[in-house]
Order: sequence, then C-alpha cells, then structure tokens
Amino acid sequence: MAGLTPEQRTAWLRLIRSENVGPRTFRSLVNHFGGAAAALEALPELARRGGRPIRVCGKAEAEDEIAENERRGVRLIALGEPDYPAALAAADGAPPLLGVAGHASVFLRPVVAIVGARNASSAGRSFAGRLAYELGGAGWVVASGLARGIDAAAHDASVGTGTVAVFAGGLDCVYPPEHADLASRIVEEGALVSEMPMGWQPRGRDFPRRNRVIAGLALGVVVVEAAMRSGSLITARLATELGREVMAAPGSPLDPRCEGSNALLREGATLVTRSDHVIEALSPLVDREAPRPQPISFAQAATAGFAPITPGDDDRARILELLGPSPAAVDDLVRQARVEARSAQVVLLELELAGRLERRPGGAVALREVDPWL
Amino acid sequence: MAGLTPEQRTAWLRLIRSENVGPRTFRSLVNHFGGAAAALEALPELARRGGRPIRVCGKAEAEDEIAENERRGVRLIALGEPDYPAALAAADGAPPLLGVAGHASVFLRPVVAIVGARNASSAGRSFAGRLAYELGGAGWVVASGLARGIDAAAHDASVGTGTVAVFAGGLDCVYPPEHADLASRIVEEGALVSEMPMGWQPRGRDFPRRNRVIAGLALGVVVVEAAMRSGSLITARLATELGREVMAAPGSPLDPRCEGSNALLREGATLVTRSDHVIEALSPLVDREAPRPQPISFAQAATAGFAPITPGDDDRARILELLGPSPAAVDDLVRQARVEARSAQVVLLELELAGRLERRPGGAVALREVDPWL
Repeated sequence: MAGLTPEQRTAWLRLIRSENVGPRTFRSLVNHFGGAAAALEALPELARRGGRPIRVCGKAEAEDEIAENERRGVRLIALGEPDYPAALAAADGAPPLLGVAGHASVFLRPVVAIVGARNASSAGRSFAGRLAYELGGAGWVVASGLARGIDAAAHDASVGTGTVAVFAGGLDCVYPPEHADLASRIVEEGALVSEMPMGWQPRGRDFPRRNRVIAGLALGVVVVEAAMRSGSLITARLATELGREVMAAPGSPLDPRCEGSNALLREGATLVTRSDHVIEALSPLVDREAPRPQPISFAQAATAGFAPITPGDDDRARILELLGPSPAAVDDLVRQARVEARSAQVVLLELELAGRLERRPGGAVALREVDPWL
Repeated sequence: MAGLTPEQRTAWLRLIRSENVGPRTFRSLVNHFGGAAAALEALPELARRGGRPIRVCGKAEAEDEIAENERRGVRLIALGEPDYPAALAAADGAPPLLGVAGHASVFLRPVVAIVGARNASSAGRSFAGRLAYELGGAGWVVASGLARGIDAAAHDASVGTGTVAVFAGGLDCVYPPEHADLASRIVEEGALVSEMPMGWQPRGRDFPRRNRVIAGLALGVVVVEAAMRSGSLITARLATELGREVMAAPGSPLDPRCEGSNALLREGATLVTRSDHVIEALSPLVDREAPRPQPISFAQAATAGFAPITPGDDDRARILELLGPSPAAVDDLVRQARVEARSAQVVLLELELAGRLERRPGGAVALREVDPWL
C-alpha cells in the first residue's frame, strides 16, 4: 500500500478523534465495517445501541487539523503506510495516525528507549547521557518522553545522532514548557511524535498511553532510576506486554529512586551498566522482521460484498447479563452467552463506544464503573 | 563418631602443619593410608620419591600448639566431629582442623556471609549493616572476614545476635589491628575462626584460602560493593564452586566499587536490596541436609588389612612425561599413562608433597613452574 487517499485520511482522523474510539476500537471498527468511512457512518447507531450517544468528529474539524499539521510541517502518518515506524506498527494498540515533526527517516534505524526518574540523581543523569551518547554513536536512535531528569539527559546527549521525543499531548504543547529549546534541537536530526491533536494539553491519563508509544517504537527499554509506582515502570510493563526487551541500570538499595529499577532487575530485566550491554541484548532483534498485524486489510475501503452484522436484542441482553465489573475473557463470554462470535464482538464494540466497557489485558473485558449520580 | 582421641588429634595437626599439605592433600593422604598417623610415617618417603624432601611437623611442635590453644580458650575442632560446622564439612577443601574462639554453637544456626569492599561507600556500609542486623534478628548468623568497610559493618551490626569472623592468619593475629576491639566483641556471642596456627601473620595468598572458609561456612554469600578483581569476587566464585547461593546488592553503574558486584548480577547472582530477599533465596536450603563427604572413614585409624600402594618407577615416569605446565584432567592422565588409578593418585600425591604439582579447578593438575635459579 502506498498510502491513504486524502478522503481516507480524513475518515481515519474523524474516526480516531471520535468519542470513546481508541486505537483498539479503531481497529475493530475498521475491520468490522471494512473501512473508516463505513465505520463512521455506523458509529452513531452503534453507540446508541450500546446505551449512550457519542460525539463523532466532524469532517470540517478533521480537515482543520490536517491543514494545521501541514502548516506546522507535521506529517500524519497512517498505520500501514511505508513511513510508519515498523516496530510500532507491530505493537498491539498502535495509534492509527501518528503526528511526526522532524525526520520520520529516523525510524528506518533501530530505536532504543531510555526512560527514568524526573528527580534523578546527578549520577543517574550522567549515566543516561553516556548511554544515549554511545548508543547514538553506535547507530541507535534514542526514544524518550522529554520529561525532566533521565528523559532530558538521554535526549540531550543524542540530539546529534537522532533522538525521538514522544509527547503525551499535542506537538504544539511542549511539556514541561522549559524543554521547548530541547524540543527544537531534537527536531533538527530526530523527531517529535504524538498521537494526540494539536492543542491537546496532556492530562494524567495521557502519559501511560504515551508510554505505550515509547515502548512500541523501541526494540527495548532501558530504565535508569525509577521509583516504585513510577511512569517508567509502566513503560517497562508495557514493553514486556509488547514483547520488547526490558533493561535496567542497577542502583543503590538505599536510594528510593532506584527501588523500581532494582525491582525490575529482580523480576528478570537485563542488567546494563554499559552501552555494549544494551547492544548485546538488542542486536539479535535488529534484523528480525517485525510481524505487521494485517496492515493492508484495514486501510482499504469497504470490501465488496461485505455485510456488517447487527446483533439481535437477545444476544445483546445475554452478553450484558454475563458482564460485570470483574474482568471476563471474551472467549468465555462468547461461549457462555451462546452468541455467534462476530455478533458478540459487535455488542462489545457498541458498549465500548457508549463508554460502558473497558478492555483489560489478555483479551478480557469488564463493565466500567458508572458514577450513580451522573 | 564422638571425636578424635588426643593421639589422633596430634597426628592430624602434625599432618596438616607439614610442608605442602593442604586440606585436599590431607584428605588424599588419610584416605590412602587409612589414618593420619600412618600417613605421617609415610610422608618423608613419599616426598623423596616426588623429588624433594619436605619438613614434617614434629610431635612436640603440634603438642605445643594444642597447649597454646587450650590456654587461650581456642578449640581445635576436627572435620567429622559433632561441633564442626556442618556446611563447611560439606565443602570441598574444608580444613581438617578448625580453630574456634568463642561459641561454636553458632554453627547450629544457618550462616549467611556478607562481604564487600574495604573502601566501601557510606551507603554501602549502611546497607551491609542494615542487612546484617535484620538477618541476625531473623535467626541467621552473619559470617565475614573482619576487613575494613563492608565486613566490619556487617560484623558490627550483628555482634548482638552472633557473628563469625574468619581470620586469614592465626587467631592471635587480628588483621587489621584496629579491629581488635571488634574481634573481642564478636567473641561474646559469636566466634572467631581460623585454620592457621597461632602466631601466623596473614600473607597475600592466605586471603583466598580464608575466603573459601567464609564461603564454605555459609549457605550463601551476599556481595555488597565489590570492584573488579577484588577478594569479594573470589569469595563469590568459591561460593559458586561449592554450590552455595551467590547474591549481590546493585550499585551505581558509575561507581567502580560496584563494577564487580554488578558483574556478578549480570552473571546470574540473585539481586538483593532487602533482608527478606536474602531469606527468600536461602530458606529452601536451610532444612536440606548437607551432604557430608565420607567424614568417618578418614577420621579413624588405619583399617585392618589396609595396604598402601607404592607405584613402580615406570608408572611414575609415564605420568611425569604426560604432565606439563598446562592443566590436565586426572582421569585423562590415568587413561593415557595406562597406570592403575590408585597408583597414579599416589604418584600425584608424591609430586604434590614435593611441591611440584598444583591442583586446578575441576579435577585437573599441572606441574608447578619452578624457578630455574633455585
């Protein structure tokens, strides 16, 4: 596939910017309806059947965002297009559209993520910088989150060889603001990346989603100084889920900033104290071709003869009855409800779009807790 | 076996204090001749056949050492006697006689070794102390080498619950001298241990031998801050050879004092940052009975009908011809020389006693480089 047509790109953007549509729901919708345009048409009715109408992104709004990106030199690269980062394309939950400022060509080189504590020690920052500098010199692209501390040290040391900063908000919303200069230096040889629209100020829950993109871009993640329950540990967990290598630098047992990274090492992360340890761990992965999850099929328009399913009310009722706040495996659900699998998938889509269903790890789903006063 | 008779004890002491007789040669001799007294009788002739006469420890000298130990309240406990530390008894190369000042009863409790850098950081010392204190409180006896830095911190924190200091020299030669007060506090609830005679000032090569006793006494060794090529790494290697658990505390990648301990972690040592990590790693070993390597047979007098072998000159010549400065496996040697195995063992004993043969790890032997000007 060479790329999306302008009409397809607008439809993709409208779909991913609609309420309650994340990367996974996007994929389910496009696969079920055979294309983004068909999914968009079905969206209001699906959500209504799920129990609550949702806001669908209008055509003008999407066209404005595309125009704004063009004005600022930001490319919106679609999953399945040649310039989409190959490692990310292979990741479950990859963003359908990725905003890229700078050089998308860095993604032709292998990427390693270096993340860690915002309040990192001086030694931790030095180590992250040395690692990033040496990995950059060895041909690796360093990805991180532009945060204070370890992230900034890693970016700063690899500005000259190409580094990638993944934003939790829009590409015009540099966070923290004092890293605006660093961001502008990153663009010269590397790239700024975001799946969020321009103007989007990052909120708390956007950071784990951003961390998934960092992990997805990279063959492996190096954690330098991470406290327990820190964002870096989330990135490491996501990297594990995505089958990527997790590495960590050791730190003093008495330093709370190293409790998380030391815990990763106890759980089996590869201990790295030198850049060649990282290269040794990741080199076997470089030439292994990333498995692309059916990228073509869902980038095309509706297949001829394609017939979307409308589940019967009985099916919907039986599935709803089986769902609760505890996660249930979709496979079990389908079997217990005695509903055709594709039909069950549509019911789940409906509930997801209506904001009543959460996807949990390992193919499980749960009803979302709803505030009774709303 | 209840214990050695006074005559046996004197014979054991004479044998182990004779020139070129280490713990392994001691065991070979006693096993071959069926007792220490018979081995002592054979010693001069064996060494002569090996090519060089050796100094055999006289009866009066041994009796003086025993008397001196008694005067100072030091017990000489023999391998195979009930009070000999069970974990050490199971270790290859265990000293036949162990000098113990203080409470030998500490060896009825499980022992964990904590070792590390003499020039340890303040954080490293604090961590070693915290670990030793908590392990002591949990019923463990802490063993170490009384060195400056980590060793001293570990002893100091576990004085109240029982700690064991293993000396590289005689028990009257506290090294370093400024730890004399610490040593006297250790004796109150714990023990000082040495395989060397009173008055023996430790030399460089005594320390690795001492480290083997530390590793042998313990179910596992925790290394806190060790540089590359440090004594603590030797202790860790010996612990691995003895099948004991090797643990290490992580440290900053930029601190040379942690390079060795971090390297151990990369090689598979268990990462520990809390005392319960140590307990978790060692608990499964506590109740497992240590395999005692034939302790009775070699503590007894010569077996009735026992006939020591005298190898023929042809056998000796064929074996010598096959030996060189590169290590050779004893099994290969025996096969290639077409010599009876027991006969070959005696030839090797002869050469060992004459100081011409070195034992290498894994059952290999090599001719010792001899200074041509001697």
